[in-house]
Amino acid sequence: MTLKTVKMIIEYDGTNFYGWQRQSKLRSVQGELERVLSKIFKKTVEINGSGRTDAGVHAYGQVATFQVEVPMPLENLKIALNNYLAEDVRVIELSFQEELFHARYSSKGKTYVYKVHNSNGRDVFLSNYTYSYPYKLDMELMIEASKILIGEHDFLSFMASGSSVVNTVRNISSIEITKSGDIITFIYTGDGFLYKMIRILTAFLLEIGNKRLDLDITNRIFEKPSRKYTSKVAPANGLYLKEVYY
Amino acid sequence: MTLKTVKMIIEYDGTNFYGWQRQSKLRSVQGELERVLSKIFKKTVEINGSGRTDAGVHAYGQVATFQVEVPMPLENLKIALNNYLAEDVRVIELSFQEELFHARYSSKGKTYVYKVHNSNGRDVFLSNYTYSYPYKLDMELMIEASKILIGEHDFLSFMASGSSVVNTVRNISSIEITKSGDIITFIYTGDGFLYKMIRILTAFLLEIGNKRLDLDITNRIFEKPSRKYTSKVAPANGLYLKEVYY
Repeated sequence: MTLKTVKMIIEYDGTNFYGWQRQSKLRSVQGELERVLSKIFKKTVEINGSGRTDAGVHAYGQVATFQVEVPMPLENLKIALNNYLAEDVRVIELSFQEELFHARYSSKGKTYVYKVHNSNGRDVFLSNYTYSYPYKLDMELMIEASKILIGEHDFLSFMASGSSVVNTVRNISSIEITKSGDIITFIYTGDGFLYKMIRILTAFLLEIGNKRLDLDITNRIFEKPSRKYTSKVAPANGLYLKEVYY
Repeated sequence: MTLKTVKMIIEYDGTNFYGWQRQSKLRSVQGELERVLSKIFKKTVEINGSGRTDAGVHAYGQVATFQVEVPMPLENLKIALNNYLAEDVRVIELSFQEELFHARYSSKGKTYVYKVHNSNGRDVFLSNYTYSYPYKLDMELMIEASKILIGEHDFLSFMASGSSVVNTVRNISSIEITKSGDIITFIYTGDGFLYKMIRILTAFLLEIGNKRLDLDITNRIFEKPSRKYTSKVAPANGLYLKEVYY
């Protein structure tokens, strides 16, 4: 039998996972998917994700690939997977790809969503799904700043330590910021993002919106990389991996 | 100074708590509230809840009492509490009560809500807040059965083991069952409920609605107490303590 490459699109609520990456003793999304795939195929199946998501981060459309001799139609495999998977993760779509297709290396870009609950009042049932930010925000200032961030730049100032990435140039093709009721949604699309980059970008934009940082700083942030103005990291629970492009 | 009795109404998302009751090494709602109260009053403050909620159970209106020499207006205390408390718990209301008022012993009744997601499709973001029940349900049958359950009965058949309660007679004053989209909501009001009684009642009603159990069994369930038809317990994550009456 020949191995076939299968692409899976996955949705998950990250609240009860210690992140995407497989860990020996902690519950991870990768671990949960591999557990069920290995059960179905009665042999160890390992998957490759498009990238790790940290503990508490959610996904509407994470992508993972695996290679397997598929003994059943993909529609049946999907039903079996969702039958065995825990309630907080779901396989949305399965498809065959050419052999060398890889969730991470074949990726051309991603969209992330970040949700902020901008209110004096606390909503305990939003606590795992938004960042509660009670301070006043000027939408126009944040939108102005986001326009300056769009494009190809060295985003070293927006990368958390602990990453071994060498090339820190990335191209953000769009940032949308919208408000609906108390919820402000940031949507970032780009060719790739550095470690914690979305959460640092969001924290930075919130500082601009709250006038703790001058809009002008956005113009200077790429001149000389520094975490001076980008030391804050918005919490993981407001972040959603929306889509991966190939 | 004299001690004053304070009543607090509390809302919480139970997802990240190991239940209400204080535990030495695990995060509990009582522990979180006592931690913050003790910090504010600079001395150990212990609280009494209206009853325990299990791990994963939520509350819109849990009640707890504590006694303390109050050095500040309650409105300020509420602000301080919500300032220090984690995002997934919130104090809604504080009030002074007569000295012997007690969250548990003064309680005259409670309302609980149980939410079921009745759909073939999975919604991962509802997984911590509803019981996902994909099977067909006949609303009329469940409503018929609920009418039989209302009133004063020996609910021993609806009590989970592990309870030391002697008198198992309770009075359910109302059960409302409504459907909105894919969500079926059960609202139970009564003078008190036995250990896991709401979750066992809900599982039983779902079995009636799915026609795995005959409606007739409801008429016979109080004749001779047994867990034969009530062995299922709906999961904790669909349950919400709505209100406590005094």
